[in-house]
Amino acid sequence: MAERFISERNLKFMLYEVFDVEALTRYPYYQEHDREIFDLVLTTALRMGKDLLQPALQEMDKNPPQFVDGQVKVHPMVRPFMKQCGEGGWIGAGAPFELGGQQFPLMISAAFRFILAAANYSASVYPLLTSGAAHLITSFGTREMIRTYVPKMFAGEWQGTMALTEPQAGSSLSDITTLAVPTDQGYYRMHGQKIFISAGAHDGVENVIHLLLARIKGAPPGVKGISLFVVPNKRMQEGGGLIPNDVNVSGVYHKLGYRGSPITQLSLGERDDCRGYLVGEPHRGLSYMFQMMNEARIDVGLGAAAIASAAYYAALEYARDRIQGRRLSAKDPTTPPVPIIAHPDVKRMLLFQRAVVEGSLSLILQCAQYADRMRVTDGEEKEDLHLLLDLLTPAAKTYPSEMGILSVSQGLQCLGGYGYCDEFPLEQFYRDARIHPIHEGTTGIQGLDLLGRKVIMQEGRALVLFCKEMEKTIRSGEEFAVLDPYAQRLKQALEKLKTITSHLVRLGEQKGAECFLADATLYLELFGIIAVAWQWLVQAVSVQRAFKEDLSDGERNFYQGKWYACRFFFHYELPKIEGLSRRLLESNGLTVEMKEAFFGD
Amino acid sequence: MAERFISERNLKFMLYEVFDVEALTRYPYYQEHDREIFDLVLTTALRMGKDLLQPALQEMDKNPPQFVDGQVKVHPMVRPFMKQCGEGGWIGAGAPFELGGQQFPLMISAAFRFILAAANYSASVYPLLTSGAAHLITSFGTREMIRTYVPKMFAGEWQGTMALTEPQAGSSLSDITTLAVPTDQGYYRMHGQKIFISAGAHDGVENVIHLLLARIKGAPPGVKGISLFVVPNKRMQEGGGLIPNDVNVSGVYHKLGYRGSPITQLSLGERDDCRGYLVGEPHRGLSYMFQMMNEARIDVGLGAAAIASAAYYAALEYARDRIQGRRLSAKDPTTPPVPIIAHPDVKRMLLFQRAVVEGSLSLILQCAQYADRMRVTDGEEKEDLHLLLDLLTPAAKTYPSEMGILSVSQGLQCLGGYGYCDEFPLEQFYRDARIHPIHEGTTGIQGLDLLGRKVIMQEGRALVLFCKEMEKTIRSGEEFAVLDPYAQRLKQALEKLKTITSHLVRLGEQKGAECFLADATLYLELFGIIAVAWQWLVQAVSVQRAFKEDLSDGERNFYQGKWYACRFFFHYELPKIEGLSRRLLESNGLTVEMKEAFFGD
Repeated sequence: MAERFISERNLKFMLYEVFDVEALTRYPYYQEHDREIFDLVLTTALRMGKDLLQPALQEMDKNPPQFVDGQVKVHPMVRPFMKQCGEGGWIGAGAPFELGGQQFPLMISAAFRFILAAANYSASVYPLLTSGAAHLITSFGTREMIRTYVPKMFAGEWQGTMALTEPQAGSSLSDITTLAVPTDQGYYRMHGQKIFISAGAHDGVENVIHLLLARIKGAPPGVKGISLFVVPNKRMQEGGGLIPNDVNVSGVYHKLGYRGSPITQLSLGERDDCRGYLVGEPHRGLSYMFQMMNEARIDVGLGAAAIASAAYYAALEYARDRIQGRRLSAKDPTTPPVPIIAHPDVKRMLLFQRAVVEGSLSLILQCAQYADRMRVTDGEEKEDLHLLLDLLTPAAKTYPSEMGILSVSQGLQCLGGYGYCDEFPLEQFYRDARIHPIHEGTTGIQGLDLLGRKVIMQEGRALVLFCKEMEKTIRSGEEFAVLDPYAQRLKQALEKLKTITSHLVRLGEQKGAECFLADATLYLELFGIIAVAWQWLVQAVSVQRAFKEDLSDGERNFYQGKWYACRFFFHYELPKIEGLSRRLLESNGLTVEMKEAFFGD
Repeated sequence: MAERFISERNLKFMLYEVFDVEALTRYPYYQEHDREIFDLVLTTALRMGKDLLQPALQEMDKNPPQFVDGQVKVHPMVRPFMKQCGEGGWIGAGAPFELGGQQFPLMISAAFRFILAAANYSASVYPLLTSGAAHLITSFGTREMIRTYVPKMFAGEWQGTMALTEPQAGSSLSDITTLAVPTDQGYYRMHGQKIFISAGAHDGVENVIHLLLARIKGAPPGVKGISLFVVPNKRMQEGGGLIPNDVNVSGVYHKLGYRGSPITQLSLGERDDCRGYLVGEPHRGLSYMFQMMNEARIDVGLGAAAIASAAYYAALEYARDRIQGRRLSAKDPTTPPVPIIAHPDVKRMLLFQRAVVEGSLSLILQCAQYADRMRVTDGEEKEDLHLLLDLLTPAAKTYPSEMGILSVSQGLQCLGGYGYCDEFPLEQFYRDARIHPIHEGTTGIQGLDLLGRKVIMQEGRALVLFCKEMEKTIRSGEEFAVLDPYAQRLKQALEKLKTITSHLVRLGEQKGAECFLADATLYLELFGIIAVAWQWLVQAVSVQRAFKEDLSDGERNFYQGKWYACRFFFHYELPKIEGLSRRLLESNGLTVEMKEAFFGD
C-alpha cells in the first residue's frame, strides 16, 4: 500500500509562494493568524490523514454502509473522526470567531480538506458537508436556528446535508415537488421523497440536519417557487431531548466507488409528522442553496484533485520500485533492467498526472483566494472577485473531475496488471474518482451554467475580468526569457477563447438557445484547459523567481519538477484546444438536428 | 436491466454491405458457406447471448472465481457454455474442415465473438482463448500434438491459455526465466512462475492446456532464447487417463472488473514433475506466439468494442425512458418535461458512443477481411495483406480499448447518479472495460510496436500500402457530393500522418531511439483516430449507396443514424488530431530529459 498521498512541499509552494496566504493576515479579519498556525493546520491534517483516514481507506470500501432495520451503519471510524474534526475546530474552520468558528482563510481550510480527501475521500465528505450546511444556516438562518444547530454541527455531533434531488427531478430542480404545508406553530409539515442524499442518515453522529429544498403549498411553479428548509432527522422536544422527526430512510445505494459514504433515499412525512423550518424568505430557496452548491462544486473539484493526487503518488512509488525492461537505446538483453520510471512513456504518464493534480489544485486555490479577498474588500473590487469566482466555479468543478479520472486511469496504467487488482489502491481510486463528474451538477449542467449563464451575465463582464487576470499573468511571464514562449502560447489561447465566445454568442442570437448551447460541454472543456494553463503560468512565474535564489539540491529538484510539469502542460495538454476550437467554430447543429428515430437501430 | 447489447442490423450492414463477406464464398475455400449460414451464425450467437450469457453477467461479477483448496471454482454456467460452444463447432469455427473446424471466414467468427462478448465479456473469453491456443497448436505443432489436444479443445472439454507473463517479466518478454530442461523421453521438465494467466485453471473444463513461453536450459539470453511449449494441467497417462502435471495454482487475482474470468498465478514443477512439450523449433517460440498474440490483440479490441456496445444500448434505453428537463428553447416550467434523449448534450454523448463502437467494429472487421483474403490469395497480394494487418493490429487493439473506456464512461454519464449504482449495468461495464488497455500488451507497448516496428519495417512499405487503401476510399468518397468534404478532411489527415511519420523517422535518425519513440503512444492515438475516420468514410460510402434505393422508414432511419454518426466522428473526433499533430511535430524530448529526481516532491 502506498504511503504518500500528497506533497506537503507543493501545498506550501502554492499557499506561500504562489498565492501568498500570509498577505491576508495583514487584514484585521485574519490578523489572529500567521504562518506558524497555517503550518500547524497542515501538520494536523497530515497526521489525521495518516493515522485515522488512510488506514480505513480500503476497509471502508470493502465494507460499505449497511442499511439494517431502518438504520444506516457506517464504518466505526466515522464517529471518532467527526469528533476529532469537531474538537479541533475543523468543521467551523472558515466561520467567524463570533459564531464559534476559527476564521481561517478558505485557502487554508481548502488545503486542510485536500489532505483529508487525498487520504480518504469518502471519510472527508462527512465534515465537509456539515461545514457547508452550517454555513448556509449562519448565512440565511435566524439567530435561534443558528443557536440550535450550528454549535452541534461544528462540534461534529450532528451531520449536515444538502437535500435537493428527487426521483422525478435530478438535474431539473425546477421540478421539485416536496411539499411544505404551513402550520400556525412556526414550522411546516413536510411531505416528499429525496434521493441521492449523501450522509442522509448514519450512526456516526447523533443527528442529521438536512438543508432541504421544497415547495410551500401554493407556491409558483418552477425555480421561483422553491424554498429552503432545515429538516432534522431528530427534532428538539420541548423541554429538551431529541425525538424522531418522521424522516425515513428507505435505502442506501450500492455504488461503484465512494463507498465509505452512505448515499441515502429519504421519505419525509410518512406519518404526517415531519417538521421543517423555513430558512430566510419563502421562494428564495434556490438562490440561498446556490451558496452551498457553489462551495460544494469547488469542493468536488478539490476532492477529485485529491484522489488524483493519492493515485499519482501510488503510481510514482510503483514506478520507482518496479524493475522492468531496458532503455530503448540499450537493447542488449544481458544489461540489467531498469526501474520503469526510466522509460519516457512512463515519465509521460507521471508528468500528465502531476500536471493535472497540481494544475487543478492551483485553480481551486485561486478560487479560494478570490473568496478570501472578498471577505476583506468591498464595493466594486468585491463584486469583481465575486464575478470571477462565479465564472471559474464550473471549471474548478469540472476540470479536476473529468481530468482527474484520466489522471487516476494513467496512474492505474503505470502499474499494468497490478493496477487492475486490489492489492494496490489504484483500482479503488479509479472507482472513487468516477463520482465527480456526476454529483453537484453533472458536467453537462456545468457547461450550460458556464456558457448559458456565467459567460453572458452582466454583458460578459466576468469574462472580461478573467481575461484581465490572465493578461496580468502573461505580462509577468513575459519578464522571464524562458517563460516568454509559454506566455505567448497562453496569449494565443486567450484570443481563441475570445473569438469562440463571440462566435457562439452571435450564433445564439441568430439560431437560438439550443444551437448556442449544443456544444457547451466542449466549451467548458476548452475553458478549463485554458484556465489551468493560466494557473501553470502563474506557478511557473513563482518557480522562475525561486531559481534566482540559492537552492539546496532537494529544493532545486522540486522546482525543476514543477518546471517540467508546467512545460508538459503547455506541450501536451494545451494543444488539445486546437481540436476543440475547430469544432466550436463549426457549430453546424449536428446534435440539435439528430432525431431520436435515427438512434433506432 | 437493459435488454439489448448489440445491433444486429449494424452487424449485417458491416458484413454484407460494407465488407461483402459473401464475396468470399466464390473462393473454393469458403464455397460451402452462404449468406443463409452466416445469418444463422448471428442468430445462434444472439440466442446464446440472450439465453445463457447475459443472464449471468451480473452474477458472475458479484460472485467471482474462488480459489479453494488449490482449485479454482468458476460460475456454474461456464461448463454448459463451453460445452455448447464445443458442440456448435464455435471454438473451431475458423479452423479448416480437415482439422475438425468449420472453415468460417474470420469476419463471421469475429461477429460471433462480438455478440458473445457484448452479452458477457468475461464468459466469452473462455472459448476465445481456447480457439487461439488450438490455432497455435495446429499452426506449429506436430500431428500427434494436434491429435492429442485439438479435438478436446474444439469440443470445449479442455481450456486453452496463453502463458507468457512472469513476476519479473511483464511487458519485457526477453526477461522470461521459466526453464525447460530436456529429457530423453521427448518432453521437457518445466520450472517457473507464470502470473496473470487468464483461465489458467478452473472447474468448468476437464483440463487446461497452456501455450507457454520458456527458456530451454542453455538457451541464449533475450527473445532469441525463448521457446514455445504445450504444458497441460493434466497430462495423458500411458494407457489413457489424465494425471496431474505438477502445474500448481498459487492464487487468483481480485480484480476491478472482468471478474467472471479467473486470472491465475501458476507455479510449474514444484515436485519436479511438470512436463512440457516443445512446439516447433527451439528458440523460435516468440515468433510463433506472435500469431496468438496478434489474434488476441485484435480480439481485445473486439471485446472492448463489444462492452462499449452493450453500454451504449443500455444508455440509449435509459435516455429514451428517463423524463427530465425541458428543451433549452422552452423554459416555461409548466410545460411537460421531455425524455433526456431530446437534449443535444445527451445526443452528443450517445453519438459519441455510437461513433466509437461502430467505428471500432469496422476497423476490426477490416482486419478480419484482410486475414480472410490472405487465406485465398498468394504471392505479393498475400504479403501486402499481411503487412496491412500487421500495421493495423496495434490500432485495432488500442483504439477500441482506450476509446471504449471513454465511451462506456459517457454511457454511465447519461444515467447520472444511477449510472454510478449497481441497479444498472453501466458501472460493471465501466470496470470491465478498464482491462483492455492493459492485457495483451499495454497501450504503451502497442505504441512502440506501431512506430518502432510496424511503420518502419521493410522501409515503410506497410504504411505506403495503408495510405493506398485510404486513398482508394477517399476517391470513392469524392464521387458523392455530400461525402466530398469528408473525403477532403481525411485526405488532409492522411497528409498530416505522412508528415509526422517522416518527421519522427528523421528525428530518430538524428537523436536516437528514445527521442524517436518518446511520444509513440500519442502517435498511436493519432494513427487510430485517422484509421477509424477512414472506416467511417468506408461506411459512409455504403450509406450513400443505400440512400439511392427505395427504403422503408425504419431502413432510412438506420442509414440516417449511420450518416449522423459518421459526421459526428469527422466533426468531433477527427479534429483531435490537430492537438496531437502539434505535439508530435515539436518533439522537444521533454519526457526523455525529465529526471527521476525531479519527481522528488
